[in-house]
Amino acid sequence: MFESAEIGHRIDKDSFREQVPKLREALLDLQYDLKEKADFPVLILIHGFDGAGRGETMNLINEWLDPRLIRTEAFSTPNDEARARPWMWRYWNALPENGRIGMFFGSYYSDPLFARVYDEIDTDALDRKLFDILRFERMLTQDGALVIKFWFHLSREKQKKRLKTLEKDPATSWRVTETDWRHYDLYNPIRKYAEHAMRLTNTADAPWVVVDGEDANYRNLTVANTILNAVRNRLSGAKPQAGNIDAPPLLAPIDDKLVLDALTLDQSMDKVSYQHELDHLQGRLYRLTRDERFRDHSLVLVFEGNDAAGKGGSIRRITQALDARSYRVVPVAAPTEEERAKPWLWRFWRNVPGKGGITVFDRSWYGRVLVERVEGFAQEPDWMRAYYEINDFEHQLIDNGAIVVKFWLAISKEEQLARFKLREETGFKRFKITDEDWRNRDKWDQYRLAVSDMVDRTSTSKAPWTLVEANNKYFARIKVLRTVCEAIEKRLED
Amino acid sequence: MFESAEIGHRIDKDSFREQVPKLREALLDLQYDLKEKADFPVLILIHGFDGAGRGETMNLINEWLDPRLIRTEAFSTPNDEARARPWMWRYWNALPENGRIGMFFGSYYSDPLFARVYDEIDTDALDRKLFDILRFERMLTQDGALVIKFWFHLSREKQKKRLKTLEKDPATSWRVTETDWRHYDLYNPIRKYAEHAMRLTNTADAPWVVVDGEDANYRNLTVANTILNAVRNRLSGAKPQAGNIDAPPLLAPIDDKLVLDALTLDQSMDKVSYQHELDHLQGRLYRLTRDERFRDHSLVLVFEGNDAAGKGGSIRRITQALDARSYRVVPVAAPTEEERAKPWLWRFWRNVPGKGGITVFDRSWYGRVLVERVEGFAQEPDWMRAYYEINDFEHQLIDNGAIVVKFWLAISKEEQLARFKLREETGFKRFKITDEDWRNRDKWDQYRLAVSDMVDRTSTSKAPWTLVEANNKYFARIKVLRTVCEAIEKRLED
Repeated sequence: MFESAEIGHRIDKDSFREQVPKLREALLDLQYDLKEKADFPVLILIHGFDGAGRGETMNLINEWLDPRLIRTEAFSTPNDEARARPWMWRYWNALPENGRIGMFFGSYYSDPLFARVYDEIDTDALDRKLFDILRFERMLTQDGALVIKFWFHLSREKQKKRLKTLEKDPATSWRVTETDWRHYDLYNPIRKYAEHAMRLTNTADAPWVVVDGEDANYRNLTVANTILNAVRNRLSGAKPQAGNIDAPPLLAPIDDKLVLDALTLDQSMDKVSYQHELDHLQGRLYRLTRDERFRDHSLVLVFEGNDAAGKGGSIRRITQALDARSYRVVPVAAPTEEERAKPWLWRFWRNVPGKGGITVFDRSWYGRVLVERVEGFAQEPDWMRAYYEINDFEHQLIDNGAIVVKFWLAISKEEQLARFKLREETGFKRFKITDEDWRNRDKWDQYRLAVSDMVDRTSTSKAPWTLVEANNKYFARIKVLRTVCEAIEKRLED
Repeated sequence: MFESAEIGHRIDKDSFREQVPKLREALLDLQYDLKEKADFPVLILIHGFDGAGRGETMNLINEWLDPRLIRTEAFSTPNDEARARPWMWRYWNALPENGRIGMFFGSYYSDPLFARVYDEIDTDALDRKLFDILRFERMLTQDGALVIKFWFHLSREKQKKRLKTLEKDPATSWRVTETDWRHYDLYNPIRKYAEHAMRLTNTADAPWVVVDGEDANYRNLTVANTILNAVRNRLSGAKPQAGNIDAPPLLAPIDDKLVLDALTLDQSMDKVSYQHELDHLQGRLYRLTRDERFRDHSLVLVFEGNDAAGKGGSIRRITQALDARSYRVVPVAAPTEEERAKPWLWRFWRNVPGKGGITVFDRSWYGRVLVERVEGFAQEPDWMRAYYEINDFEHQLIDNGAIVVKFWLAISKEEQLARFKLREETGFKRFKITDEDWRNRDKWDQYRLAVSDMVDRTSTSKAPWTLVEANNKYFARIKVLRTVCEAIEKRLED
């Protein structure tokens, strides 16, 4: 969920300065349009990690806007009046009116999120509150409100660095409070439960927008442009696909930097180290899957990747270490007629392993948001909601004990060309290269975007994507095996 | 929720016999249309109380249909294979394919419902499962499935009577199992948690249909007609208002009997008994609202009713017993401009009392589904979703300690006319009768239907409607006062 917000987005000072005047003008125009024409309010929620620049950005945007048409509410501990009433009461009271922008600093998400982080409530109670929230937001959006929810993100290390920097400078040290440091200690639980909450409430009607908080220019432009686009869209009459639970991408990253771009695809590993590591890891995997504790779990491995990235070879290195009775490899191709007559996830549900079982998916349900999206086999609203449905599916598996490990094997366009050619030249490999592979290659950039969206929307702490630099097959196979072993170990020790 | 299913619907044998042949033909035609034309499946869930005729009705309908095009699945305890997988797995596997009807006897609702009834899980965990279900059903319906959920209803006394009757007859005694009697003992918790589950999952996409299970003819025709109508509608291209959370009435009661019709409006009470009871109840109410335990609660009274039914008089008899500092009477008229610029419930949220407080609403949020519906001030999708929003609102109040008591004061059309005339003749009462009152009177039957829908959809065990027979003002006032006292007592003793 936070992948794209951790790869270091930046906008340099000059581009920023160049863009600001136009942006400010557009924002002001927008506000007046909103006032004149809109029979709906705009509600903006501001959340995120301390130090991720929430306050600075929102102050700046407040400056850029006409203050008479925007109202900012900061919510901290409820007062007596609020405490005597249902917990949503103070948020109801603060709702903006039609034609206005209301900005909530902290919101109805904060109460249950921090109650969970401080262990005052359990996850069932958290989910119950999220269900309350989902109904509240549905009411708001059905009533016409435009709801945008920002999460200002920072990795833990960057949070620490930023708090230290702020503290050192006498001009900004006042910004850092004890609460900030207490929250820093709680970074991991906050991240975990925030991600959980966002996964369950990321609806098309009220989407979450994760903003990389590190670089102020990038952050400010992203937030301003997101608001601008969303309100403009709505004013132009576009209504969100009601009931569609997954949020459409509100805005591609303004610096055009996608998660796959952050990978160094060429990683080296020689044959001797490879063989050594392979033996070691296969033994480790064998023992782990025979461990008594594994009987309460199951293992679901998902392999996706560029054509010719080496999925098959990686899968074989895994199954070599397994008892043939304990696993199944499920190769996934286009759905059959029977499968097409059922909900699209049905064919994957059928293949869910029982306790103690292992299923390896050679391609998977992610086809819905990759090939079906790129080739237009699925309609946009359908692949859009698939992100939410996939998260739901995988978390049902995980709740039942499954260990879910997902790999994207990435090779460079050049490496792929070399491998295609080699396959065509090698008799016994010729069946592995088809016209379709060449056609897919033509859509390289569309896949690049689809993969990035997929990772951002479906990588969760419990079912993370592992991006595998696969130009070197040895390196890739070892990374895959090690990741699988570590994932099992981690879960068995939980 | 169960009101309309407890007033004794009946269809006599002759009408039944007359209707069946046409109905069977229509059902068969429908099935073939479904097979030929439909790119969606129909999923029918069967739930309800033991003895309410679920099995008999569904067997009959199975007989009426072509068995090759329908598949019935009965779910009881999961087998080992299912137990080793996520709980939804067996329901996924049993999903019908496009063009087919799948009937689930017991379903994914049964597991969490009975787990809660047997106290194996708490309400937070139940709600979490309901949230799972809501997402599952949304996935199904977005995928195109038509989902109809039946609840076969019986009151507790009728359940007992029916189980006894079945048991006595050797031909049917096999139908009654020990489980049936165990469930009979659990009638109240089953009813309570079923209602809770239905309230939170009664979506337009997958609505609940409550069927009075007492009379076989009524029950059979209702179920068959509901299926017929729903599938026909869908085949004709009508899509449910996606995202709309409240279900539209699938079918008006086939015997045209509405809840208000079951009241005996003329109840007698003489002035002496009235005065005596009044003094007694007002004293009781005064003491209850001064009770120390009341400080953790609040009281929300809702008065609705026919024009001239005596709301004002009843309210005065209550406030006479209260400390002026502790209560507020909120008269509700058309919303102001400020109020119209906010979500419609906002003006009621503002007036939510704090702990220890009392708010009396003289007319209320129910205007949304009464006057706004009948007069067309609110669009159909808007007042339709209001049922769900109202339930949500009231249950947030209740979760926070509020005691919510709702009255519908009902008078006959004749009695209303007499009162209107009296008001016109009595100088100091003339302001109380307006042209609008006469116009409303012309829409008597539309209001009768709106009130019936309102009671069915918003009367819950924690926020029940009390229908007050109000032709006799004394009787009405005493019933109101007594109901308020009893509701407070019950909650304080919880």
